[in-house]
Order: sequence, then C-alpha cells, then structure tokens
Amino acid sequence: MSKSKWIWYPGSFELYHGMLLHNRRTSSRAYEDGSVKSLYYYPMWRVDGPRHNSILIKTAEISKREIIEFYANTELARITVDDTSYPVGAKITLEPGRHTVCVQGFKECGFPCYYIKGNVFASDRTYLVEERDEKAGRHAGESELYTELNDNPEVFKFAYTPIFPLVTERLEGGTLYDFGKESFGPVTVKIPKDGYVDIFLGESREEALDTKYSQIVLNANIEDGSYTSLPVAFRYIYIPNVFDATVTASLEYLPLESKGSFKCDNEEINKLWEVCAYTMLLNSREAFFDGIKRDRWVWGGDAYQSFFVNYYLANDKEIVKRTIRMLRGADPIFKHINTICDYTFLWLCGIWEYYLYTGDRSFLEDIYPEMLDMWNFISGRLDKDSLYERKPDDWVFIDWSTFDSNGPMCAEQMLLCRACQCISLCAKELGDVDTVSEFEKRHLYIKEQINQRYWSDSKGAFIDDYKSGKNNVTRHANIFALLFDYTTNERKEQIIKNVIYNKEITPITTPYFEFYELDAMCAIGDFEYVTNMLDSYFLGMLRLGATTIWEEFDPEKSGIEHYEMYGGKYEKSLCHAWGASPIYLLGKYALGVMPTGVGYKSYIVKPNLMSFNEIEGKVPTPNGEIYVKADKKQVLVLSPISGGTLIIDGKEYEIKKNELLTVEL
Amino acid sequence: MSKSKWIWYPGSFELYHGMLLHNRRTSSRAYEDGSVKSLYYYPMWRVDGPRHNSILIKTAEISKREIIEFYANTELARITVDDTSYPVGAKITLEPGRHTVCVQGFKECGFPCYYIKGNVFASDRTYLVEERDEKAGRHAGESELYTELNDNPEVFKFAYTPIFPLVTERLEGGTLYDFGKESFGPVTVKIPKDGYVDIFLGESREEALDTKYSQIVLNANIEDGSYTSLPVAFRYIYIPNVFDATVTASLEYLPLESKGSFKCDNEEINKLWEVCAYTMLLNSREAFFDGIKRDRWVWGGDAYQSFFVNYYLANDKEIVKRTIRMLRGADPIFKHINTICDYTFLWLCGIWEYYLYTGDRSFLEDIYPEMLDMWNFISGRLDKDSLYERKPDDWVFIDWSTFDSNGPMCAEQMLLCRACQCISLCAKELGDVDTVSEFEKRHLYIKEQINQRYWSDSKGAFIDDYKSGKNNVTRHANIFALLFDYTTNERKEQIIKNVIYNKEITPITTPYFEFYELDAMCAIGDFEYVTNMLDSYFLGMLRLGATTIWEEFDPEKSGIEHYEMYGGKYEKSLCHAWGASPIYLLGKYALGVMPTGVGYKSYIVKPNLMSFNEIEGKVPTPNGEIYVKADKKQVLVLSPISGGTLIIDGKEYEIKKNELLTVEL
Repeated sequence: MSKSKWIWYPGSFELYHGMLLHNRRTSSRAYEDGSVKSLYYYPMWRVDGPRHNSILIKTAEISKREIIEFYANTELARITVDDTSYPVGAKITLEPGRHTVCVQGFKECGFPCYYIKGNVFASDRTYLVEERDEKAGRHAGESELYTELNDNPEVFKFAYTPIFPLVTERLEGGTLYDFGKESFGPVTVKIPKDGYVDIFLGESREEALDTKYSQIVLNANIEDGSYTSLPVAFRYIYIPNVFDATVTASLEYLPLESKGSFKCDNEEINKLWEVCAYTMLLNSREAFFDGIKRDRWVWGGDAYQSFFVNYYLANDKEIVKRTIRMLRGADPIFKHINTICDYTFLWLCGIWEYYLYTGDRSFLEDIYPEMLDMWNFISGRLDKDSLYERKPDDWVFIDWSTFDSNGPMCAEQMLLCRACQCISLCAKELGDVDTVSEFEKRHLYIKEQINQRYWSDSKGAFIDDYKSGKNNVTRHANIFALLFDYTTNERKEQIIKNVIYNKEITPITTPYFEFYELDAMCAIGDFEYVTNMLDSYFLGMLRLGATTIWEEFDPEKSGIEHYEMYGGKYEKSLCHAWGASPIYLLGKYALGVMPTGVGYKSYIVKPNLMSFNEIEGKVPTPNGEIYVKADKKQVLVLSPISGGTLIIDGKEYEIKKNELLTVEL
Repeated sequence: MSKSKWIWYPGSFELYHGMLLHNRRTSSRAYEDGSVKSLYYYPMWRVDGPRHNSILIKTAEISKREIIEFYANTELARITVDDTSYPVGAKITLEPGRHTVCVQGFKECGFPCYYIKGNVFASDRTYLVEERDEKAGRHAGESELYTELNDNPEVFKFAYTPIFPLVTERLEGGTLYDFGKESFGPVTVKIPKDGYVDIFLGESREEALDTKYSQIVLNANIEDGSYTSLPVAFRYIYIPNVFDATVTASLEYLPLESKGSFKCDNEEINKLWEVCAYTMLLNSREAFFDGIKRDRWVWGGDAYQSFFVNYYLANDKEIVKRTIRMLRGADPIFKHINTICDYTFLWLCGIWEYYLYTGDRSFLEDIYPEMLDMWNFISGRLDKDSLYERKPDDWVFIDWSTFDSNGPMCAEQMLLCRACQCISLCAKELGDVDTVSEFEKRHLYIKEQINQRYWSDSKGAFIDDYKSGKNNVTRHANIFALLFDYTTNERKEQIIKNVIYNKEITPITTPYFEFYELDAMCAIGDFEYVTNMLDSYFLGMLRLGATTIWEEFDPEKSGIEHYEMYGGKYEKSLCHAWGASPIYLLGKYALGVMPTGVGYKSYIVKPNLMSFNEIEGKVPTPNGEIYVKADKKQVLVLSPISGGTLIIDGKEYEIKKNELLTVEL
C-alpha cells in the first residue's frame, strides 16, 4: 500500500459526492398530450458543495534526507517548502532538519486534491488546514479508497457487474424485461432505429407497465442504435411499441465485503438474512441511502440504522464516516439535519456508536468540534426548561404514524437525552472534562424531566405530550424508554404490558421503527416477540415475492395497494435500507456479539437460540471476525481478538485470541 | 429591452465571478537551474463559491391570460406552476387568477440560472428565495447585464479592443515590445516555431527586462505557431532569445460610459484627470480591483474609494452592487472583510453612500439583512466598553504607515462610529425604528468616547492609542475626525495646525490615505492644500512617465526604487485604483456637485475654482449629468433633474430642471 493518500479540505470529498447524489433524483410526470417526462427532483434541504479553494500545511522534523514529489488535480496549485514555492510536478529534496510544507490550490468544478510522494511529508491526514481557511487546527481529509497517484477522488469508486433480463415478455403494447430481482445501475438499450424512445422502469411489474404512473421514465435518445442511461433502480423494464430491443444493464455497487454471516435451521430466515444483505448492498453507496428508487438521498434516521446493520455485516468505517460528514453539511448550521430534529439528535448518537464499534480515534478527534457546533445549534432552540420544543422550521418525524406532536414530544426528549449522553461519552474519551460534566448533568436532568412530566399513572405509559392534555399514548417514546434504559424496571414492565403487547396501541408499520421496537424487546430479553415479528412482518414481504425489503409493510393490504405511498400509486420504495435490521438483531442478540469497550477492546458473546434449534455466523470487528456456533448442546466461539467473554446463563468464560472455545451445555 | 432577466440565488453571480477572479493571480519564481515559473497565488482570505442549487418562487394574481416559457442553463431544472411541473423548454398557459410559479435547479460547475419569458411572471428580482434554501423572503439575484435569453451569466461581459506595440526594440538578449501605456488583456504571440517560450511582462521597462525578478512570466506553449495568454497586465513585453515574434493584444475592459468630465485651464491637471479615468477603467471589472498586475483582487478599502470615484465618473450601479456582494461573501462570517477590520466598517459605510448617490432602494432592501448580520459579527468582537479592540485574527490596516496599533486604535473607533451612523441612516430609510434608535445611540456614544479617551491636550491632537501611554500621533485618526465631523471646531483647528500642516508628523505616502486627507481638507474648505498635493504628489508620478496612478509614491525616491514594495523589486502596482481620487475631489469640490437627498432627490452645486482660472465639467446622477462651468466672472449650471441649489458665497439659487442657470459674479 502506498504511504501517501490524496488529501483535501476536510469534508470536501463528502460534500462533493453528496451534492452530486442529492441532485440525481428524477420523477416522471404524464401530461395531457400523452407525453411522459422525466423531471429533475429538487432535494428537500440545503445541499452544500465542496470548498473550491484549500490550503493545507505540515511542519515536521526529519532526520533523513527526503525527496518529495507534488501532484494535484488542478494546475492552479502550488507547493511551498519553507520559503520557496514550486508548481505541480515539482520534485524537491528536503535536507535533515525542520521543514514546513504547504500545498494550496483552486478548482472551479469538483474540488482541489493534492498528492505528495515522500516519507514523513507524504500526504495524509497529518496535514492541517491553514488558519486563513476558517477554523484552524483541523486535519486534512483523506480516504482509504484514494491512495494511489492515478486515483481520482472526484470519481466515486464503484464496481460493475453485467446483468441481463431473466424473462423477456412480448405483450400487446410493447416488451417487458424482468431482471429477476431489484437492481441498480446504468441500463443499455439497443434498437436498430435512432430517435426518441420512452423506457419505463418498475420495482414491480405493475409499475413498469403503468406508463402513466410509473415513477421513473427514461426519455431516451437512441443514437447509433444504442442508449445507456445514468444509473437507475429497477427490476422490470418496459418499452412500449418496441419489440426488437436488446436490454442489458450493469449492477453498480460498492464492493463491501460481507464479513458478517448468519445461518440457522430455518431456511426462510436464512433467506431473509440474504435479502437484507442485498438490500444493504444496493443502498450502501457514496453514503447510506434510504432507498435506491426513492429518494436516493441520505436521511439521518435511515442512515443511523444502516450504521448498526453495517457493524454486523461489513463493519466498513469509510462509509459511516462519509455518511456522517455528508449529513453534517457545511457551515452555517441553519436547520436540523434533513430539517428533522430527531435526525440531528441521532447524528450525535451515531458518532459515539461509531467510535464504540470501530475505535477510530482519528475520526472522533476530527468530528468532535463539529458535534459541539451541532450542539450550539440545538441549544439555541431549546425551550426555557432546556427541553426540546418544536420550532416552526422543524420537521418532527419520529416515524410515519399519528402522534400528538404539536408540542414538546416525549420521544424527542428521549433522543435529546441520549444525544447528551453520547456527547458526554465522546468528551470523556477525548479528556474534555468540562464537556463531560456539562453533558452528564444535562443527560440526568432530561431523564428526570421525562419521568416527571410524561409518565401517566392512569395509562401506565409515557404519553406523547404533557402539555396538550390529550394523554395520547403511542409506542415510540415507550420503546425509546426501554431501549435507552431511561425508566425504572417497574415502569418498564407496565410499558411492555400496556403498550408493546397492547393491540389497541397502533402498531408500527415501518421497518424503520420496527428496528427500535425489536432492538428494545431484545434488549430486555423478550426474544419471542422478535421471532414472531421476523415471521409475520419481514417474512410477510418475502412471501409476497419481495427481493429486497420495502419501505413500509401492512399485512392487511393486498395487490398493488402495497406499492402506494405518499399519495402516489407506486411511490413506495421497494428497496429500503431501513428494512435490513434483522442482520443487526440476529448478530447482536442471536449470535450475541457486542463490544463493551471501544473498538472491541473488550466485548461479550451471549448467544441466544431464540426460536431456532441451531445458529452459526460471524460478526466483523475492526480486527477480524468473531465466529459463533450454538445449538441446544454446545456453544463454540473462535475470535481473532482478545478481550472477549462468553456468557451462558450468567456464567462467564474467557475467550482467548485464536483459540476455539467450546462450552457443552 | 426585454422584460425578463436571468435570475439566480442572490449572491451566486457575484460569488461565482469573485471566486474565479480571486484565483487568477499568479507570481513568477526564478529557480537555481535558471528556469522561471509562473505560480498560482492563493488568495489571502476565504473565497466563497456560488450555491449550486437554488429554488425561486413567485405568487401573483393575473387578470389576463399569460403564456410563459421556461429556460435554464442546466438540464437539471424544472418549473412548477401551481401543482404541475415541467422540464426546461416548457411553454405553459396561465389563465387569469392567482398562480404560483417555482423554478429550481442544480448545476455542478457554475451556478443555476433561470429565464422565464412572460408578463407578470417574467423572471426578475420579484421571485423570492424559497424557504428550504435557508433565509426566507429574499429576492432573486439579477443583473442589468443579463436580460436576453442568449446571455450567459457565467461569462462576464467584457469588451475587447485590439492593441499593438508602439515600439519594438531588438536588444542583444531578445525583443522588447512597448505598448505605450499600461494595458490589460490577453496577449497573442506568433512565432514560426512550436515549443515552450518564456514571455516576461512588465509595467515598467526595467521589470520586463529583469527576467529574474519580473513579477509576471508566461510559460507559453507555442502550438501551430501561436499562443494566447489569459488576460494579464503589462505595458512592456520581453521575449528573450526570440527575434521573429509578432506580439499583439486585446484590451479587455468593462465598457462603462465616462459620463463625468472635468476640464480646467491647467493642462497637466486635465491630463491627470484622464490618467485617473484610465486607471479606473482598467480596474473596473467584475468588481473594483485594487490593481491589475497585483493583486487583481477585491479589497474593501480600495473598493470603497472606487465607489466615490465612480459616483463622479460613471455612476454605474451594477459594479458597486457586485463589489459589495463579492466582499460580503457567503455565510458564515468568520473573519473581517479581507481579514481587515477597517474594511468591514467601510463596507457598512459604503452601502449608505451607495444609496445616497443612487437612490437604489431595491438593493438597500436586499442588502440590509446582510448589514445586520455583519453587525452581529462585529458586535461579538467588541470590548467591554463596546469599542473596537484588535482580536488575534484581525488585520488592523488603516494605511501602510507606522502606528501604535497593538491596542484599541483611535482610527478604528472613528470608522466603527461612522459604520454605526450609516446603519442608522439605512435603517431610517427602511423604517426599522428600533435599529435607528440603537445605532444612533451607539454612534453618539462612540463619538463621545473618542473625544474623551483619545484627545491629548498636550499634543493638541488625537493619539493612536489611549492605553499604551505612548501618546503617538499620526495623521490618520485626525483626518477621520475632520472628515466625519467628529470633534469640535476648536479641536479641528488644532488638528490642522498640529497635524496636517506639521511636517514632523509622518506624511501620507499612499494615494489610498491621500484620498481621505484631501477629502477632509476639502470638506473643511482648505483648497490650497489640495491643489498643492495634486501638483507635488499626483503630477509627480505623471512627470516620471506614469500612464496610470501608482500604488504608492515617495518623491524622495528615484529610478527603479519607485517600483519596489513589500520586499519585491517590482512588486509595486503601477496601476492602482486608489489613485483615481482626483476625479472625485474635482467633481465634488471644484465642480461642487453633491447629493443632499438620496439619489439626488435634492442636491447642491457649490463650485470652487481652487487654484484654477476656469473649470468645466459634468457629474453623473442616476438621471443624467449635471453640467457646471465656472470662471472668475460667471457660473453656469445645466441640470436634467430638479431639486438642485447653486450656492455661491453663501447665496442660494434654485437650479431648474433643463434650464441653463447663469450667475454673473
């Protein structure tokens, strides 16, 4: 591996690719004259671009002579060594001693990147942002993906695999191509006649054939008998009035290794795990997407759950870091992340959990000042009691459900409280004692306020809003209370009885919130609830032919009713990342692997068969995969790292590095 | 003229062109191996780029059917009329009634611009920034320069005139081309042999010939016998070792009409006025530059003076507005304008004066919230007494001179005070009474503090710093006190005696501060001082052969000593905008024209012959030029606007619109 990496102004790489991806969404629109047009779809929040200027600097003492070579992706760049400047392409000898190397440049399109071959002065994160470029003392941006001189950080490194239709069906009005499963990538259509052709895509057969309401149309211009689209999502492709086309595609994806795995004696569950992994693969791109047909955007809440799935599937650090930076955007912070207050709180939580699962201290150091900036934004919008209350610009989301949500919502206080706890945990790691003390206090204070203001003795549950007088109970805040351990055991028992197992309380319909519900139920040890939900809810989709997990699922609906959402006939996404949570749940609670110290410095393995007879799988850590196999007679664990403890029925066994541990039951 | 204008997110046009121009500077560097390279020169402050996304919206009632046509400079754009969206190129009929039209788009390079043909919904400033794009309620950006569909706001509209060398001189080492005067534009070199050739430019003959120290080198690659450079500044061009080249150039300039004029019976002064006008022409571009060889940047203090010169030369509104927006940059405000605190204060003053000279209320409305944001930045950095005190990041400039400048400087308080006064004046025009009251109070308070803390009875002058104990006196704060009328008449008289006419106080060496000194002396009616300075200082440069005004002039120096600055042999700019002040001084104090009501709603003409026997000229107002002619016997005034008063020896005469007023003396 090269010693050097391409470097840039911190955040520019992520903001550049974020800007491009957030502006690639289209939607189709049918007009009265019968035409159907593909229209650019504007993002719902401010999308920041990269810095077009940057200046990065490093001072160090070298004991050996060093030759450095300077490269940049722009001619408008220079390197300055001590007091002498040189153009791009310069090769400079540094004698032993103390030197300062500074690179600077401008690029109108894209963003300036620099590459310095050398030893101590090889380009990497140890270069700092120079003071005139705003905040001082920050590290240069870099990525593990761009370490070779001929890499281009402006081109995102995807992999491509050719794919073909499994079934080609000649219908009366045209030809339908079925690729067999949800796919994403550029589509190529060859027709022996030039001109404009409309190509309709569908995640479902019905959508592709419904030329008036299908979400994605390609207004293709066939030249020299061929047309290739930008990358799009599809399973079905329908071309009206054309019967002699050849349709192929490329699967475009980020080649993340699935280091995690899970098998059990229930084949449907094994298939579910694979479908979840494929759903994740499609949505794991420049950052974690929500869905690949719609929105193809990065939403903080969706991404937050993808982080957890990632820790049990690939444990790829780079995609989490990119997602965090993309969500953060540039200064000034003017609205909540994606305009949603809960997503801002989750963004803060996600950083602590990233550190817990990866132990990546460099990133924690880099992002920590941005966390504090985010807090400053939040704190300027708290109410007089230092609690969260909706402001006119805020989107209070929590979930697609009906809440009593005009006032200060209980679920938001729960997330605010957890965000404060996570800031305090991060501050502790970095030795920022004043911040630890402030946020530990805030966390305890908010927890107390939640229990005082929102608990209803008559309902035996947390209510949505203590001000409105409606005493409305939904599952969401109560689930957070279980998940974050924010109330007494006695109240938890009441919540389980009065909310979770109470069919009168509106059930969760999105896999998004199902994630939190199942996580909470596992956290309190109720695995039956989980396996029932895996069966009725997740396998429910698979039994209807889903090849990826949907945005929402209501077992009561039938036929194309399933595809309707937001008032659009096919607007529901049929490949939505937030449905991949079974990977996380099975890895964390069935295989039972979870870090207890940062970066798996210490960890536990607490396998649970749930409703299965045997389970087997791997969980990726920053330093290799932990293998776990369990049935009713024995438990096997093999781990490449030390610090582990196997727990069975409360009894603890030390897991020695690279030694197979077998416990007979 | 077209009803429609190209529109964009406010500020994007200015930030885009500002980004490009601030990154075009180069400097040359000679290496030990004999090579000389042209190197990119990084700006000294954060340079912001345009927004790559924008969304603009307008709601209006129409009484007649209207057909609109939508165009954009990007395919990634859509127009939404009420609830229906259309792609670029759409033609849509609006029936009488209330409609909402919204345009939105993305452009990776450059910035998205929209053009809507129509009547009520024709694109112009009346479109507003939509709320998701940060601050709501702001008007779309537009420019008088881009009103036709085939205009391209990403290409700045310069004019070009071919120019040729007046003298071609074959020297021993190569060929020298003299274009006769300072010029700016692309240079074309034709040589009957391809390959690399170094071309040395000079504002002076000595600079062009000094291949080691000349500031600008073109490392030209001759292809097909020809090379054309990017626009550069030069009078002389030297090509070593080449004797068969043909060298031509294009003068690139903004075709601003010189509506102002000045003639007197002193031919040297008449020539000076023309040289000043030419200096201004070269520096009037996307915005007002400091100098065209160096820095080719927009500096707030330099631009501030160019505003005044402009009001007496072209009274072009567009270039002032562009300059103000470019200086403002994007959010967040993190450092002072150009990092210089005085320039931030002057930026605020410049807005009021722009309004006074132009009466452009639309721009005042648009920029007013930005003024308040700027004040928020300033106020977070004031000391406990609400006065300005240097912060570590601040560059306290005032002038190239030696000050006692580590503490709270008197000259800075003067500018702070004037800035508060100007905010209050702007707020008054817009009816923002709370702000008027706050800033009128601040202005009076600071004035009082200045007179209490900085006046030295023993020196009979304002001192630089009241804390240091040094009691150092420089001209600068004392000049501001005269200019802004911030002290008593008695103290003013002391200042004139103890500072202005005191040769022991270091004289001003920059035309920059000479502007303020002469303005102040004129304001208090001492015209002899001015005519002496015009002769000894400004004509001093012309007598040395200057074809444009220099950045600095010290009559004591000789030969190439004149070209040295900042430690560089030829680093001084020989075409510096801040030298053009005689245009302002002669227009305002000799012709005597000045607005007393906003936009020349009322104005006075108070001619003064100074040391001349006769004067004649024109001063441009927003509605035509005021003509003034005066000699020792009579005064003539002809004005296209009403509201004017001619004042001679304290006697007032009404100036009637379009009627020649003659007063015999």
